Amino acid sequence: MSPGFAARTAPLVAALVADAAPLRLGVAQGQLGARIVDGGIEARGSLEAGRRIAEICMGGIGQVRFQASDRFAPFTTLVEVGASDPVRACLASQYAGWKLASGGFFALGSGPARALAACEPLFAELGISETGGDPVLVLETSAVPPEAVVAEIAAACAADPARVTLILTPTASLAGTVQIVARILEVALHKAHALGFPLSDIWDGRGSAPVPPPIPDFIAAMGRTNDACLYGGEVQLYVGGPAAAARDLAEALPSCASRDHGRPFAEIFAACDCDFYRIDPLLFSPARVTVTAIEHGASFSAGALDPHLVARSFGG
Amino acid sequence: MSPGFAARTAPLVAALVADAAPLRLGVAQGQLGARIVDGGIEARGSLEAGRRIAEICMGGIGQVRFQASDRFAPFTTLVEVGASDPVRACLASQYAGWKLASGGFFALGSGPARALAACEPLFAELGISETGGDPVLVLETSAVPPEAVVAEIAAACAADPARVTLILTPTASLAGTVQIVARILEVALHKAHALGFPLSDIWDGRGSAPVPPPIPDFIAAMGRTNDACLYGGEVQLYVGGPAAAARDLAEALPSCASRDHGRPFAEIFAACDCDFYRIDPLLFSPARVTVTAIEHGASFSAGALDPHLVARSFGG
Amino acid sequence: MSPGFAARTAPLVAALVADAAPLRLGVAQGQLGARIVDGGIEARGSLEAGRRIAEICMGGIGQVRFQASDRFAPFTTLVEVGASDPVRACLASQYAGWKLASGGFFALGSGPARALAACEPLFAELGISETGGDPVLVLETSAVPPEAVVAEIAAACAADPARVTLILTPTASLAGTVQIVARILEVALHKAHALGFPLSDIWDGRGSAPVPPPIPDFIAAMGRTNDACLYGGEVQLYVGGPAAAARDLAEALPSCASRDHGRPFAEIFAACDCDFYRIDPLLFSPARVTVTAIEHGASFSAGALDPHLVARSFGG
Repeated sequence: MSPGFAARTAPLVAALVADAAPLRLGVAQGQLGARIVDGGIEARGSLEAGRRIAEICMGGIGQVRFQASDRFAPFTTLVEVGASDPVRACLASQYAGWKLASGGFFALGSGPARALAACEPLFAELGISETGGDPVLVLETSAVPPEAVVAEIAAACAADPARVTLILTPTASLAGTVQIVARILEVALHKAHALGFPLSDIWDGRGSAPVPPPIPDFIAAMGRTNDACLYGGEVQLYVGGPAAAARDLAEALPSCASRDHGRPFAEIFAACDCDFYRIDPLLFSPARVTVTAIEHGASFSAGALDPHLVARSFGG
Repeated sequence: MSPGFAARTAPLVAALVADAAPLRLGVAQGQLGARIVDGGIEARGSLEAGRRIAEICMGGIGQVRFQASDRFAPFTTLVEVGASDPVRACLASQYAGWKLASGGFFALGSGPARALAACEPLFAELGISETGGDPVLVLETSAVPPEAVVAEIAAACAADPARVTLILTPTASLAGTVQIVARILEVALHKAHALGFPLSDIWDGRGSAPVPPPIPDFIAAMGRTNDACLYGGEVQLYVGGPAAAARDLAEALPSCASRDHGRPFAEIFAACDCDFYRIDPLLFSPARVTVTAIEHGASFSAGALDPHLVARSFGG
Repeated sequence: MSPGFAARTAPLVAALVADAAPLRLGVAQGQLGARIVDGGIEARGSLEAGRRIAEICMGGIGQVRFQASDRFAPFTTLVEVGASDPVRACLASQYAGWKLASGGFFALGSGPARALAACEPLFAELGISETGGDPVLVLETSAVPPEAVVAEIAAACAADPARVTLILTPTASLAGTVQIVARILEVALHKAHALGFPLSDIWDGRGSAPVPPPIPDFIAAMGRTNDACLYGGEVQLYVGGPAAAARDLAEALPSCASRDHGRPFAEIFAACDCDFYRIDPLLFSPARVTVTAIEHGASFSAGALDPHLVARSFGG
């Protein structure tokens, strides 16, 4: 029996908290005793905090690294992401699929606690659920959740609220920016799933995306982080099954296969009257994709990086 | 007395086995009690497993990292390899120099157990042999070795067969692909040795090579992994001794110094009637080499990466 | 209370010493019992040793990684550096600000012990001083310091001389080369400070620089390591405060803003009659700088990498 996400991320979370000062994180205790890690609300947070939070988001079974690259100079920091079990790391843990709402608060939960709650329909489909261990959830939010949300998380995970850790990363923060673009492989997995590609045929994957400069305005920040993926991100998937299925996936997967592709995300969002649900859901995917049909040795590439659009998005 | 390869790799092997599930490795016990790690025979294996196996191959004193690079786009994952004692890491541990045959089984053993056995003539020349610790050997094979091979390894290492760990990585697997191209520095060391360059003058080295897409056909897989090094690999060596010796080494070392250079490896192999020993042994080397004469501050470069040939080899 | 530099670097120093053999380091004990780590005087040292020494220099709160890059091919190894608290990591620890002289010996001390001594005026300005833990200091020198220097360090840190560790890295050595160019972010911090930019507004930073080939001549070695930063280095800073201040910083920060920019450093040094203090102190900075005003989302870039000058400097 292999350790679950909770066991694999517990030492990463402990190290994050122990390094809170140099990582510029705040750590506080909520009324119900939950540990609240502030990744950029009152605290400044940092790029390295975002990198480590992204590895926690991936359930401790993914790797996120920074590297220098001239693809999008002068914005030369990339995140490079890998997962040897991308379905588990990206869909069962990293995907922000747990809707948490209470009063005026709304956020999407990501990370290892999702598999403890297993309350999303996706988990039945994946056949994954976990028990035991302390719930850790990452929320892309600029507000501290009300205690009702803490209680809901604890109850869904059958845990004491005092054992819950919430890691909060605003979209506009350094840490938030990194943990979002570190989803470059996850968006590919999510779209492959939406396209009906059999998840059990996804063997391995790696991806990279540039780290955009944070910007306080929420829509602008959402624009840049999306553009980093849609126009600056790339992914290689290694899949089993027939070569034709790999070819079809490669053709359908990149963002250019969407009707909404071609403009900065903030413009697309405005054109949809700021209604997220009017945007083509198949837009959310890497700019460039390579799919290798591992049982046939054939590779299929589609899409392209768009450094001009990325520069326009990041530069303003 | 510095710890040997066995002591340095034991925690890496333990971690590999503990992470077998997310790394997609199989772990079984042979009849004599040896631990058999399946890196891609029945198990799927993974790129990350290959990276960690490569660090085990280097005796725990080398570093292997993935990074994104546009050198060979759309195949954008490189392995980057370093060793501060390349003779020990690459020749005394990583080199696949231990011939193991029994019945129809044949494989070349690589990794830390070689120095425990020290049965290859190379070890007398290097003046290296180790004692104590559990034997760990990596075999590039798609078959589980017969127990006679386990017994031979155990005997050569003066160890109980139940203390042996064999890590099996088929050429055509994800893990096998990575652990082969992670030999980019080792092939440079091996050829420098074949050219008669004094090994004691090799101070340091780093290298990189692209990760080819796996392909089931053994000859095609061997072709791609060789092309990744011969046409896509580069190495920088830092050497002591006279500048003229560094210059001579740089000129002789890259693959273009071989008569067989210029065609995909699979074509060369076919042209030699699939007889490995008719291929020029000096072909096996990086595409581009820089040698720095560290006591003189002079650097010499030769050879060139060939992205077109790499694309032709990887793309089909 | 967050652990200080001494506590954060103690495990890194212990690991460095435990890996002395593969890292090619010498370890000896001085007359007063201090531990002397030879990073390239009698010992060969190595690139990887330099990388780990650089992380010790940064007080255990910075990251230094190698990666392959074609920016300055055929010198393809970059160091990539990050610090989530760059003021502490770079100025309070990494900066070589502690002047140590005795008889004919002179060296500048860098690393975690500086905050224990806190004898430089900078520390009063930063409001940083630490107590407790064993003093660890990195010296860029090719001579073992006299015991009077060991005694001075111990006294300044209120520690027993037998608890002191000195790590010695000659400018011309492999380890010294790496630990110098790993200062690419530090030189940006130091110049920002000299320009009067408020340090408390520096939130985060990353940078990279190529690793030059070592050369025995001290002035030539100093030339190459400086050229790696002045003409090959780049940094991105994330700062709070007004956008205009970020823009002004970006324009003033790169090396091209100095009157001495444009020639290899060894030539500049010769033109100043080898008098270091006649060189424009504002020369010492990265070639290319991007400053992001994080509270406004605006980024400003200035300067440019100069591969031709780097090639001329490294190639001879």
